[in-house]
Amino acid sequence: MTDCATLRADFDALSQIGRAPEGGWSRPAFGEADCAAHAWFLERARVAGLSARYDAFGNIIARTPGQGRAIAFGSHLDTVINGGAFDGALGVLAGLDVARRAMAAGLTTPVEVIVFRDEEGRFGPFTGSRAMTGAFDLAGLEARRGQDGQPLVDAMRAAGFDPARVAEATRDFADIACYLELHIEQGRVLEQRGDTVGLVTAIAGQERFAIRFTGQPDHAGTTPMDMRHDAFAATARFADRFRDMILADPSDTLRGTIGVVKLSPGQANVVPGEVRLALEIRDTDAAALGRAAKAMRLLVEDAGRDLGCDVKLHEVYREDPMPLDAGLLVALNDAAQALDIAHSRLVSGANHDAGIMAAHVPTALIFVPSRDGRSHCPEEHSDWSAILDAVAVLEHAVAHLSGQLA
Amino acid sequence: MTDCATLRADFDALSQIGRAPEGGWSRPAFGEADCAAHAWFLERARVAGLSARYDAFGNIIARTPGQGRAIAFGSHLDTVINGGAFDGALGVLAGLDVARRAMAAGLTTPVEVIVFRDEEGRFGPFTGSRAMTGAFDLAGLEARRGQDGQPLVDAMRAAGFDPARVAEATRDFADIACYLELHIEQGRVLEQRGDTVGLVTAIAGQERFAIRFTGQPDHAGTTPMDMRHDAFAATARFADRFRDMILADPSDTLRGTIGVVKLSPGQANVVPGEVRLALEIRDTDAAALGRAAKAMRLLVEDAGRDLGCDVKLHEVYREDPMPLDAGLLVALNDAAQALDIAHSRLVSGANHDAGIMAAHVPTALIFVPSRDGRSHCPEEHSDWSAILDAVAVLEHAVAHLSGQLA
Repeated sequence: MTDCATLRADFDALSQIGRAPEGGWSRPAFGEADCAAHAWFLERARVAGLSARYDAFGNIIARTPGQGRAIAFGSHLDTVINGGAFDGALGVLAGLDVARRAMAAGLTTPVEVIVFRDEEGRFGPFTGSRAMTGAFDLAGLEARRGQDGQPLVDAMRAAGFDPARVAEATRDFADIACYLELHIEQGRVLEQRGDTVGLVTAIAGQERFAIRFTGQPDHAGTTPMDMRHDAFAATARFADRFRDMILADPSDTLRGTIGVVKLSPGQANVVPGEVRLALEIRDTDAAALGRAAKAMRLLVEDAGRDLGCDVKLHEVYREDPMPLDAGLLVALNDAAQALDIAHSRLVSGANHDAGIMAAHVPTALIFVPSRDGRSHCPEEHSDWSAILDAVAVLEHAVAHLSGQLA
Repeated sequence: MTDCATLRADFDALSQIGRAPEGGWSRPAFGEADCAAHAWFLERARVAGLSARYDAFGNIIARTPGQGRAIAFGSHLDTVINGGAFDGALGVLAGLDVARRAMAAGLTTPVEVIVFRDEEGRFGPFTGSRAMTGAFDLAGLEARRGQDGQPLVDAMRAAGFDPARVAEATRDFADIACYLELHIEQGRVLEQRGDTVGLVTAIAGQERFAIRFTGQPDHAGTTPMDMRHDAFAATARFADRFRDMILADPSDTLRGTIGVVKLSPGQANVVPGEVRLALEIRDTDAAALGRAAKAMRLLVEDAGRDLGCDVKLHEVYREDPMPLDAGLLVALNDAAQALDIAHSRLVSGANHDAGIMAAHVPTALIFVPSRDGRSHCPEEHSDWSAILDAVAVLEHAVAHLSGQLA
């Protein structure tokens, strides 16, 4: 039976890197702690017997000896500011652990472990996996800055990488048979179901919108209700109808969120003259996503018209849904069943490096439960019993896949 | 017929004081410009033949010669930061103009002009009129600070007033028969009606509340709709129902406003875990105010329960409605009719010094239209033709009231 002592020792060692004095872990991409974590992992992989190197962007590619196409694992070592110890790190270390086990079992199929740089998007969404898959915007490289204002090219140089060579990080993946990623769920679905392993069927696509209602700022005392153009009244009507619309949609994987609402002038005795919102819609079902975006636009217009406010709306970000590989899903499901591990299927509302890889190689994503659904915070936690189950499923699946590849 | 050349010259002279480089007028109470405006007015009143003095708080009391109880006028000379030239100043200067006319007409009844200090509430709501009416919180004097942090006692001393003597500003008003205030409407009711003079029947009471919805901050991608405790969804549902409730209430002077809405954490991809709002309800009808406050509380609870959020609500401020004097209203109405001036009755949603005085002496408040309803901004404007009409109504009413008092 699987024993995760080595994995756990790795986890404890990595957890020493980038501890933030205010709590949690801060390993922003290309920063000092991020570089230290990557250097530590490179060494750790070499000690385990893998060849390991940085690519031109700073991603790590580690690989066990062997001929033919590899079964690849991966995730990331960077964190958000004051984030948790499990997000990303778990997938990288589990990949290394499975690679060790594969070597110990004498598997001839090579196992690869990829550490993607900047999954958390300090310099934009999934810059590392986009660089490796050729989806990185090279034309915008010089202008690209971190959330803190630092230019990406400066951060890369400081970490020892030459920005002029980013294009060399792109691979054709001819040497990889498939890509598997273990990640924490970052939600409460598995915990509520009581399952220790989640098999992800698809990664949700998303559309983000910036919406503005413009009315008229008026004195709250001197302006009768029927003379108002209250931008927050329009917002409230829209937001309530928007939620009803999401709930009424036949797709039960549709999610709609209004996370930013900013009122101007924002004084207790002034009718809000302007409200700006950020809204997002997610679903694995592209048809539902399109349907919801269309219905949402109509609701914005209705609310603006009803409350006498002008409206502006534009899409700021769009990512299509990404179905994951059906064959890998079956292999993982068979492994979980064979090992009698409590598992179920679910969708991923968040995107991961797996979502970028899925357009290029057969890809699978498996989740372990997040305690209370929390992540991106110091309290982020997954039970080691669940992690053990997930690693066992991966190990079992690798043996099976290796047999198919041989 | 009334000619407002002197009034207009006064207005132009006063408008030279406290011009802000960024636009508009900044005469915060007890500041340099405010003191200059008061000194200018004191001298201007003396030149016109009135006795004029500061009271112990720094209010000005100016009075024409004559025996018996006076007909008093008043308003204020302080402004908000980058405010307009008309708010307050117009009522003070119109009072002085009517006093001049009364003297010229040989009226035996004295006319008093009161300049209330700090109507705009730099040091709290209506500190000057509260000091004069004995409604000033003497116990809190030492601790009271301006919105900018300056202690009131320091500001008073710098302006030449002794904070230890504030209680001496309180009058019993035995020497005043009534108080009349001309003010700009600060709303769009008169403009829309096409009237030049508004006769205020009552000043609205108000209740202000701080409301908090507490849900749970969750990842917008990984948290299905039915697992959310979305504090903004609760807010939107509440706010939409709240507006419907205000509109459905039989009182057509009821006003309800949500002017402040603050989301935490306020990120596009996080379900809002907490929302804090500031809400106010105003009406001249105390029963409607009570009814709306009660209904509002139920709507907050309903929305919290429906969306799985905790709620907290507390009243932060309360002011009772203040009916104005019926006899004075008739006198002003008669004057407007006799002069064939387009006039109508309305309520005041904003409070004024008149609202503080009304608890002590028979009080009237008349409005002139505000262009586009704007005030507290450099664009604040009232047409001189309307001001001329209002001064004519006041002059006519004074002659009539003087006859009653003689």
